[in-house]
Amino acid sequence: MLSFYYAANTCALASHIALEQAGADYQAVRVSFAKQEQRSPEYLRINPKGRVPALVTDRGILTETPAILQYVAQTHPKAALAPLDDAFEMARMNAFNSYLCSTVHVAHAHRGRAYRWADDAAAQAAMKQKVPQNVGECFELIEREYFVGPWVLGERYSVSDMYLFTLASWLEGDSVDPARFPKVAAHRERMRGDPVVSRVLATHAGT
Amino acid sequence: MLSFYYAANTCALASHIALEQAGADYQAVRVSFAKQEQRSPEYLRINPKGRVPALVTDRGILTETPAILQYVAQTHPKAALAPLDDAFEMARMNAFNSYLCSTVHVAHAHRGRAYRWADDAAAQAAMKQKVPQNVGECFELIEREYFVGPWVLGERYSVSDMYLFTLASWLEGDSVDPARFPKVAAHRERMRGDPVVSRVLATHAGT
Repeated sequence: MLSFYYAANTCALASHIALEQAGADYQAVRVSFAKQEQRSPEYLRINPKGRVPALVTDRGILTETPAILQYVAQTHPKAALAPLDDAFEMARMNAFNSYLCSTVHVAHAHRGRAYRWADDAAAQAAMKQKVPQNVGECFELIEREYFVGPWVLGERYSVSDMYLFTLASWLEGDSVDPARFPKVAAHRERMRGDPVVSRVLATHAGT
Repeated sequence: MLSFYYAANTCALASHIALEQAGADYQAVRVSFAKQEQRSPEYLRINPKGRVPALVTDRGILTETPAILQYVAQTHPKAALAPLDDAFEMARMNAFNSYLCSTVHVAHAHRGRAYRWADDAAAQAAMKQKVPQNVGECFELIEREYFVGPWVLGERYSVSDMYLFTLASWLEGDSVDPARFPKVAAHRERMRGDPVVSRVLATHAGT
């Protein structure tokens, strides 16, 4: 059985939805960021990065959302969570997921985790101030260039939908109005209405 | 034929090495960052992000290094650039590549591109100041936890080697001494000695 380590209100939500949607045989283990459990010696043995998500398999431990998403899709092909039979479509999916992890998530992280990139309090405040602009520009680009509809990749639902949903749920917190991105906003509502997504969101409630 | 857009001294080097190593049928098109060509209307039609790399295929345009690397490996299986037959090993490879794009490259970018995350000059200076510490910590983690040897994933050479080589070539510029990471440093020298890598590096010379 897989063990999946997650924390509430983090990008681990995407992989959690994927596991649930795939019908994977897994247990979910909650890590409390409020209690700084991600920095405990026990957790650092699971993920030396001190981050979530982490997926413990019988062959070893996997981290990083794009890698876990593709792994869940590849090991549960019947769930059809990725265009596994088409290298070009897989690359479109992975390009989208890479953009989310390397640019969109990073733009967002400068609000709550600015201390990662500067020690100075004034510098951290300056970074936080720019977050609405940067996150807004990322979602403008997604809305205009990358979201095909009805799902991210077009007619095929995929793990990219779960990942976009997760990061789009942070828009209000970043002071960005989702109404600026009608396609992304409608997609978010549709995802929220999915029973699997609702079930996982209930698990993530609280802090 | 594929068209590959790159700029000198950027992460596009990794995908360029992969294309060359795969024996792909491609032409390389150089984009001058010095002339701000990545912001030209012509280039923005190719990659609306205004970044490199971009790979133009007969089915569409791909961006983002981890996605291009996997695509080149999947479409050139004889070159054996990824553990295509093993979902877990693919996930290890993608986790490594995701860490490079979302954390290591981002840590580095706060030196030359701090303006992305704050408008204030003092804040940008504070970010630059922390780069040696952050990049150093990333490579410590790679050296200690993720680099198996002799190649990143172990006995199998993969696109992760090309990507690590690319980012490791920025260490001195970030004021981080590669001697702190003996395995990564030896890997970098071995990669430099590879005739395919040398050929691509020669193409990237100049600014």
